[in-house]
Amino acid sequence: MGRCVNHPERETNYKCMKHDVYLCDECLECREPELYCKYREECPIWFLSKGSKKLDEQTSAPEIQESCTVTFIPNNLSVEVPMGFTLLEAAREADIFINASCNGKGACGKCKLILNSGDVLKTETSLLSDTEKAKGYVLACQTQVRGSVSVTVPEETIARKLKVAGMGKAVTEKFQGLVSDICPMMEKICMDLAPPTLDDSISDLDRLRRGLSQKGVDTSRLSVGIEVMRELATTMRNENWRVTVSVMHKACSSEVVAVEPGDTTARSLGLAIDIGTTTIVVYLVDMLDGRILAATSGHNRQASCGDDVINRIVCAEKNGVKKLSALALSTINTLIKEAVDGAAANLNDIESIVVSGNTTMTHLLLKIEPRYIRREPYVPSISAFPVLKAGDIGLKGKPNAPVFIMPGPASYVGGDIVSGVLYAGLYHDEALTLFIDVGTNGEIVLGNRDWLICASCSAGPAFEGGGIRWGMRAEEGAIESVSIDRLSFEARLRVIGGYAPRGICGSGMIELISEMMLAGIIDQRGKFQLSADHPRMGAVGDDPAYILAYAGETAMGEDLVFTESDIDNLLRSKAAVYAGFTVLLNQVGLSFDMIERIIISGGFGQFLDIEKSVAIGFLPDIDRDRFHYLGNSSIGGAYMALLSDRHRDAANVICNAMTYLDFSSNINFMDEFVSAQFLPHTNMEQFPTIMKRLNEAAN
Amino acid sequence: MGRCVNHPERETNYKCMKHDVYLCDECLECREPELYCKYREECPIWFLSKGSKKLDEQTSAPEIQESCTVTFIPNNLSVEVPMGFTLLEAAREADIFINASCNGKGACGKCKLILNSGDVLKTETSLLSDTEKAKGYVLACQTQVRGSVSVTVPEETIARKLKVAGMGKAVTEKFQGLVSDICPMMEKICMDLAPPTLDDSISDLDRLRRGLSQKGVDTSRLSVGIEVMRELATTMRNENWRVTVSVMHKACSSEVVAVEPGDTTARSLGLAIDIGTTTIVVYLVDMLDGRILAATSGHNRQASCGDDVINRIVCAEKNGVKKLSALALSTINTLIKEAVDGAAANLNDIESIVVSGNTTMTHLLLKIEPRYIRREPYVPSISAFPVLKAGDIGLKGKPNAPVFIMPGPASYVGGDIVSGVLYAGLYHDEALTLFIDVGTNGEIVLGNRDWLICASCSAGPAFEGGGIRWGMRAEEGAIESVSIDRLSFEARLRVIGGYAPRGICGSGMIELISEMMLAGIIDQRGKFQLSADHPRMGAVGDDPAYILAYAGETAMGEDLVFTESDIDNLLRSKAAVYAGFTVLLNQVGLSFDMIERIIISGGFGQFLDIEKSVAIGFLPDIDRDRFHYLGNSSIGGAYMALLSDRHRDAANVICNAMTYLDFSSNINFMDEFVSAQFLPHTNMEQFPTIMKRLNEAAN
Repeated sequence: MGRCVNHPERETNYKCMKHDVYLCDECLECREPELYCKYREECPIWFLSKGSKKLDEQTSAPEIQESCTVTFIPNNLSVEVPMGFTLLEAAREADIFINASCNGKGACGKCKLILNSGDVLKTETSLLSDTEKAKGYVLACQTQVRGSVSVTVPEETIARKLKVAGMGKAVTEKFQGLVSDICPMMEKICMDLAPPTLDDSISDLDRLRRGLSQKGVDTSRLSVGIEVMRELATTMRNENWRVTVSVMHKACSSEVVAVEPGDTTARSLGLAIDIGTTTIVVYLVDMLDGRILAATSGHNRQASCGDDVINRIVCAEKNGVKKLSALALSTINTLIKEAVDGAAANLNDIESIVVSGNTTMTHLLLKIEPRYIRREPYVPSISAFPVLKAGDIGLKGKPNAPVFIMPGPASYVGGDIVSGVLYAGLYHDEALTLFIDVGTNGEIVLGNRDWLICASCSAGPAFEGGGIRWGMRAEEGAIESVSIDRLSFEARLRVIGGYAPRGICGSGMIELISEMMLAGIIDQRGKFQLSADHPRMGAVGDDPAYILAYAGETAMGEDLVFTESDIDNLLRSKAAVYAGFTVLLNQVGLSFDMIERIIISGGFGQFLDIEKSVAIGFLPDIDRDRFHYLGNSSIGGAYMALLSDRHRDAANVICNAMTYLDFSSNINFMDEFVSAQFLPHTNMEQFPTIMKRLNEAAN
Repeated sequence: MGRCVNHPERETNYKCMKHDVYLCDECLECREPELYCKYREECPIWFLSKGSKKLDEQTSAPEIQESCTVTFIPNNLSVEVPMGFTLLEAAREADIFINASCNGKGACGKCKLILNSGDVLKTETSLLSDTEKAKGYVLACQTQVRGSVSVTVPEETIARKLKVAGMGKAVTEKFQGLVSDICPMMEKICMDLAPPTLDDSISDLDRLRRGLSQKGVDTSRLSVGIEVMRELATTMRNENWRVTVSVMHKACSSEVVAVEPGDTTARSLGLAIDIGTTTIVVYLVDMLDGRILAATSGHNRQASCGDDVINRIVCAEKNGVKKLSALALSTINTLIKEAVDGAAANLNDIESIVVSGNTTMTHLLLKIEPRYIRREPYVPSISAFPVLKAGDIGLKGKPNAPVFIMPGPASYVGGDIVSGVLYAGLYHDEALTLFIDVGTNGEIVLGNRDWLICASCSAGPAFEGGGIRWGMRAEEGAIESVSIDRLSFEARLRVIGGYAPRGICGSGMIELISEMMLAGIIDQRGKFQLSADHPRMGAVGDDPAYILAYAGETAMGEDLVFTESDIDNLLRSKAAVYAGFTVLLNQVGLSFDMIERIIISGGFGQFLDIEKSVAIGFLPDIDRDRFHYLGNSSIGGAYMALLSDRHRDAANVICNAMTYLDFSSNINFMDEFVSAQFLPHTNMEQFPTIMKRLNEAAN
């Protein structure tokens, strides 16, 4: 036992094996050395944490821990880890992002590495083929190091740059027309105050109040924080009684958030932040004219704790919510720094922030207990957040900068959806609109300016690559578009970034299924109809598969196939979404043809082929010109709310107006779900244009 | 250079000479080991601070620092200090409180010690007599240790327990009748909430809001802090959805300050705190019935930085306001702990706090820049404080417990006076009242329910013992009452605690001057009339003196005398106060006989002989039954404000209503001041009863 070197008030068992230093849990888990972990700069995290945790667990039979060097090819990065670490843990220490959807459970089979040399201990797995095993493939999470090791990270295992929607120049230009009436959370007022005299010796704060009052600010309910009061005397005298006051207006009161010497009204920055489960996007905005000065995005570092929100909550229950918060903060703060550096701006000029994210993301960021989100009756702790302060949360910027968090009505319909609805304008249009955002969950909102109804339909991870043999996110190397020749059954592929393919992403899968169905390769139940000896047919064990790309054409030198099980998984996902549409419509007594507009949001939606989506029964068979792409609507709404109180108010109105329908115990949903597990649907009359094409194809 | 062991983000030069540890300024200066300074438990503060500061200053000629042991008799306490430390610094390290009004400048001559053995380096001083020097007396602040040293702390040098007004049982009983309509800053509401179901799955916070709304709380503008939100899910489920919510009501909104599991409405404590420049008083109050559960008081540890507010501000400018804040906090938190332990209560049940103190004390406590308080035009930084939180300030109790700070209208009329006016009831009575509080400054308030005018009249430190050869505070061993036989000129003394006298306090001085005047020992100019060969007459150098007690009768074995210079100093002090009365009355066109009530507040006032105070012209010559003692009115007002919003509102009303008159450049004040430097006054007609007595004595 010893005391944490950063927090001497805490006792801890975790001592570094190399140095005479103890660290507490929080320091061990934190990934932001700047914040907590000075000693971690000298000594890698694992050396302190797991090494000594093991030592601690083995107190009855102490044993000298040896460390092993793990070298990753082709990066040629080496890290030292204690014996017994898995290759996945070693990769994380080396900051190599590798695919591991199941978070090291040995369930997804995506964390494949090739063992070049060294002593390891492998757990048996059926997720590797005999061919793979023969080539030296191992699963990183199922392989412990027993000595120094060299491994190659294959193309398909590396988590690449995501194709992020809403980052291009065209999008930022579109955004900039959105808000004409800029009204930030903080009003900046520059004043020249009269210096005090013996006859006018009111306190500095009263002088400031008087000045504000003369500028038309209602000071009857003006509050001032202790940090502002502490420096007030110096600040006011610093530039000869010229000061700039930042005032935040609330419902019935105001707050002096900052006082700066001189005139700083010409400088004011804001941040719109979208915290996705996978990707975090940051926009740096000039609050004077709404210009987007920089946009940055990156992998949410929480990904090391699992791909989806459920895994993240489980991780928080096990390791503490602080760890997850620190990971998200570390990602966000890195992106903020990049954006500010990119725009040659100053962190301290960041004066207001809007954060949009799903309910789990916001809870984790703010260190709010998330465990009941995943337990029936699925209750979030907080739906609507008060305006917080950057410093209290841990975000870079002025410590007192107000932070508006997008409210979210339910555990599985969060602030990101409210933000999307705000951006899409549903709440002020008369047109009946269906808004969908498909990721791991498919969130759906139906309504118009008079009413809004919403639900989440547990689409599962198939569209993001989960449970699909060669499934992956829309990253570089992913097949995003497929067409199949009706005669030869040969496939023509489009791969993100123009690389050799290493997997297939959601939009690619939808096109693939649609093409296979229309070409007759599969029937309407999703079963293969092609002769097993056709050159495009293969199998994985007993599971028949269509060969999308031959071994020689792929990044990993192996056939890239899509199996019947993959098709089943995808059918379940698309059925869940379509069943969701149906139940929501039934709930309000409407039908698909009454929908005037379908808005497709999210990174996924951006690259979706509508015709093919309708063909497989993922989207309803209505006029194609009623479909609209919106890109990343979550960041769009955050940008709008950042610039205008009208939009912040609207976000709250939307959240309150949204009626949430829970599908988890809804019998209608189950019925509709079963009916929709067919291509395109059991009830073919719902898909007249597809029925016609299928008939044409058959004739 | 190294990094602070408690704050690794800070670089610092201060390395312990014994240990391989660095500490930053804040840690070095803090006197509360619990808060910052784990390493200080192992190693005394000086060893880290001054020792290494010296090392640092001497980098050009480095030199091995030796440490010396200083032993204090009769306590037999030893401390180790680096060579070159003064005995005063050593005494502070040993936590021995010794008199040092001038804060180590070598000006007051009060920090006398007797050197028993050891090597020291003395600075020449005229403040010690040859007799004293012969006996081994040294001034602690003017003596550096050069080796191990043994010193005796004489009786007169030890800072004893103050006679604190307002701590007795009678006073607390009187207090308890004051507030009939208890209305604390926090309302506690216990609720049994309906557990969530799939059909009622609103967020935890919304459930709490709904519950509060059903209990009649207006939740439309209810805010909730991030700390409360973080634990909300757990807290609400902990006692099966029974919770107690603490709500703070503000002008137009409310705040959820705490949520606790179960029903805690039966437990609620509050603190009334009076931060005096010299003494801090803490009352622990049961907020349910207003009972005072415990009362504690102690020396303000800031005293090590000087006796009066000016010295404290100078010290803050030199060493940083954080140091002064830490010293006050350390004193207060020790007293809070003592009070809570004494009442067998729980720190975490402290749910509201009221702090009363002069403007300098509140600025220093809250770490607000104080430097302009002492610079013309004497502007405080903050007059009226927002309600703060215990945790933000550093006070023990619930971290979110609201803290109401008594507002103060001016730099030299502070919250303690507003608190006194509240307690005295001036602001709701019709009777014209003069309120005085005499300490280092004499603060005066004149008025009634229609108007209030106030001033501070720089009485100087004489009444508290400053500038008076044997002057001291009203501590044990102080002469507090004197009568002189009209024929023999022998003195009869009353000493606090019944000890052998070691000095004379303010009330004793007033009685002494009055008695000497009426006995004809001095004339009305304060000059000695007694023959130099009278056994009671002595001298200090050329300065004639009256011998109050002979060497054999005193604690220090030396004549206790009062010199002509002492008389001059006291005359100036009493003249300043009386001139203050006169100018305030003139300002509003009133005269002394129109005053219906004179309220004497403060520790000093409690023990004052009215008749003798009038005789020397310190108090006006009006009907004696118009004079009222009030004891410590500052804590009285704090107690009232703690229990009732009506009184908190009244404090703000009083502060705003008080018109402050600045005497520093007031010509009338100077004239009146000169006229009042006479016994009792140049204009004898203002003192008819004294004139009559003097005439009788003369005949």
